Order: sequence, then structure tokens, then C-alpha cells
Amino acid sequence: MRYIARVEVSLKPGHSDPEGETTRDSLKELNYPVRDVRVSKVYTILLEASSIKEAEEQVEEMSRRLLANPVKDDYRISVEEAR
Amino acid sequence: MRYIARVEVSLKPGHSDPEGETTRDSLKELNYPVRDVRVSKVYTILLEASSIKEAEEQVEEMSRRLLANPVKDDYRISVEEAR
Repeated sequence: MRYIARVEVSLKPGHSDPEGETTRDSLKELNYPVRDVRVSKVYTILLEASSIKEAEEQVEEMSRRLLANPVKDDYRISVEEAR
Repeated sequence: MRYIARVEVSLKPGHSDPEGETTRDSLKELNYPVRDVRVSKVYTILLEASSIKEAEEQVEEMSRRLLANPVKDDYRISVEEAR
């Protein structure tokens, strides 16, 4: 079976986000009333697995090992069957 | 009023995604049964506006002007009142 996983990796609260700060400053220079900007990344992964449970476990492991940095990142996973 | 907007910027179909390809190759080297990876970016923006309609219009304009590249990116916006 094929599954589609979405992994959203964002900085933990309190960690500085230079890309977000630069984006906020650029938007302010264009006169938008922006207070704060945070940037996160979404990995959309097409994978094979024998069940949704196995797919979720694999994606959890990928996230821990490769996609997120446990020191500074949080991540959120969702998995569904691919159509 | 304060609003929180989420803008997800992703590559249009058919545009190559070097970061996604590198991530896919790294996951394959770790023996994960991954077919494809696409990477997108989410901007979470805290802004001031007088109504949700105004907030949506502002964020639509920011996306067009600064956050997304109209040649290669799609974007999807959602806005809600900040608590």
C-alpha cells in the first residue's frame, strides 16, 4: 500500500528564527502591520508500507533521525492512504 | 484586532524540487521505502487588521508580493482570529 505523510517541522518556542525575522522586517518595510513571522517546513512523503500503523511508525522514525533536529525542532505528523 | 495567518507555499506541479530530491535520496540510503518527497514552506504571521476580511486581503497581497514566486509557486492561505 502507498501512503502520503505530511511532516511539519517548526522551531521550538524560544528558538530564534532568522528567516522569520527577515521576512517580518521585509513585510514591515512594505508597510504591512505585521507583528511576528515564524517559518516552518512541510515534507510531503509518498511511501510504501503494509499498514497505516507501519507507515506512521516509519515516518516517526524518519522525522527523528533525519527531518527534525531534536534540540531545536518540534514536528507534527499526519499520514493517510494515497489515492 | 489581531489575526494569525498561515501561508503554505509549495512548488507548482512539474517544477523540480532539489531539496525534496535530496531528502528522498537520504531517506532511501537509510533504507526507507520512500517514493517521492516534496518540500513546502509555511509562514505563520501575526498581524493587525480591522476585520478578518481585511486580514485575508492583506495576507493575499503579501503572498503575491513577497512570500510566493508566481512563476513557480502555489500558495494556500488560512486566517483566524488570534487568541
